[in-house]
Amino acid sequence: MHLLIIAHGSRQESSNNEIRALTERLRQLESPFMGIECAFLEIAEPSIPEGLLSLIARDITDIVVLPYFLSAGRHVLTDIPAQVEQVQSAAPNVNIRIAPYLGAADQIDQLLMRQALATVVS
Amino acid sequence: MHLLIIAHGSRQESSNNEIRALTERLRQLESPFMGIECAFLEIAEPSIPEGLLSLIARDITDIVVLPYFLSAGRHVLTDIPAQVEQVQSAAPNVNIRIAPYLGAADQIDQLLMRQALATVVS
Repeated sequence: MHLLIIAHGSRQESSNNEIRALTERLRQLESPFMGIECAFLEIAEPSIPEGLLSLIARDITDIVVLPYFLSAGRHVLTDIPAQVEQVQSAAPNVNIRIAPYLGAADQIDQLLMRQALATVVS
Repeated sequence: MHLLIIAHGSRQESSNNEIRALTERLRQLESPFMGIECAFLEIAEPSIPEGLLSLIARDITDIVVLPYFLSAGRHVLTDIPAQVEQVQSAAPNVNIRIAPYLGAADQIDQLLMRQALATVVS
């Protein structure tokens, strides 16, 4: 089972590199994922289809796609599912699941409050 | 001291309402913030200047602005600081601090991994 983190993609290459660094840090965590990669909805590379196809080319048949997004706007509701579906329909034997977007996590409230408080204390 | 959460703003009104619901949930948490509001960089209302000015109109002089963003793209690096600065220069006696954006939080890695695992288990 592999994990593919999907970020928006930015013209600011440092911002895309943040996602690549995050992906690298996630690989260091213990998890059931054999591999963790990232892909981008727009602008940066690899694209979502490229990211999925490069996993599939390695005979990976079980993929969890996680949208690294904070709210359920058009990208999360429509664009990401459409790009995933494009690959899924071409590779029906691969099990691709889309995890809830990051902003849907219960713990996001506490994390946000902690981040706000860090500023106050520092 | 008041907290102003800044989100991107979406054409999808349900997505803006997610931010308003988050803001409401944050108000229920114990914190040193006397009040918590939200504002939007683009599209939705109130805008960042509107959000700040409505706090200042209530004689609030200590404001923490928290960018509800995951990566340090143009919005976080340039657009939000510019809009805040516009109000700050018009209201020099108000203490406006910009907290690090949410994606800079150390705990984001664990949160993301937990979210990915939730899908696998469910």
